[in-house]
Amino acid sequence: MGWFTNLELDSLESLLVFELQDLYDAEQRIVEALPKMAEGATSPALKQALRQHLEETRRQVSRLEDIFELLGVATKRETCDAMKGLIEEGSEILNASGEDAVRDAAIIAACQRVEHYEMAGYGTVRTWASQLGLTQVARMLQATLDEEGQADKILNEIAEQNVNARASVAG
Amino acid sequence: MGWFTNLELDSLESLLVFELQDLYDAEQRIVEALPKMAEGATSPALKQALRQHLEETRRQVSRLEDIFELLGVATKRETCDAMKGLIEEGSEILNASGEDAVRDAAIIAACQRVEHYEMAGYGTVRTWASQLGLTQVARMLQATLDEEGQADKILNEIAEQNVNARASVAG
Repeated sequence: MGWFTNLELDSLESLLVFELQDLYDAEQRIVEALPKMAEGATSPALKQALRQHLEETRRQVSRLEDIFELLGVATKRETCDAMKGLIEEGSEILNASGEDAVRDAAIIAACQRVEHYEMAGYGTVRTWASQLGLTQVARMLQATLDEEGQADKILNEIAEQNVNARASVAG
Repeated sequence: MGWFTNLELDSLESLLVFELQDLYDAEQRIVEALPKMAEGATSPALKQALRQHLEETRRQVSRLEDIFELLGVATKRETCDAMKGLIEEGSEILNASGEDAVRDAAIIAACQRVEHYEMAGYGTVRTWASQLGLTQVARMLQATLDEEGQADKILNEIAEQNVNARASVAG
């Protein structure tokens, strides 16, 4: 959400649309950031996971566009301040000097915060859509929610199997 | 993390300290924001949950101070841009006009994003502390992680039992 928007809390429908537009902005910021994160990563497994998640994120953007069409509302971005902050944190990691394995650990940490933001956001809109009887929309949002949870799990595995042990002996 | 910090990725230990200082800043921003969120909420169950979580968050701040002492490092805040953004989103909700039940639904959504940020953050530092053999620190961070997960679950229950149904018929 952005500071100068006109958020109105007149109905759960309008709040749902507002939050979907916030997620739409967030996803597009992630699409811009992920290639830089993949380039800054050293572990091949991490690079590959970030590239795969970029493709998945592009599909999630399209899915949100399909939802806006289904709901008959504007395909519009509401500036997501939290995602701006999360991505600034990621940029800082890419610009910092240091050891490759430690940078990989920091990249994973930053990406997991992004995934968790999305898990919270999609969990919320999925629940509201269900409450409003928007069954098809709820199902589509659940699909993205499942994908974000899976992406977080893959990052956990890469941290545990490929990155953390190397990072702990770096320097 | 803040833009003008000197993040150095020279070792997992220094990254751990940096992320703990980021969480220390985040927690203190939450301590400032929660009373306003509780005041802006209408549902008594939600007000009570937010006030209880304020007390818990204060204990989590102290726990981080104990961890800094155990590690022998500075009790220092690193500006957490993401939490700044999350809390700005919350302020926007409190300033928006509309229906009480819809505002409650929006407050829960904002708080769950905050909880998820913390779940990702504490999950990361707990894992790094374990990797570095800092068993007591890892155990303390796990305690906070468990509390954040529980707080998120309580918000889910309040949304489902007290808020969403009222919000869906508001307006």
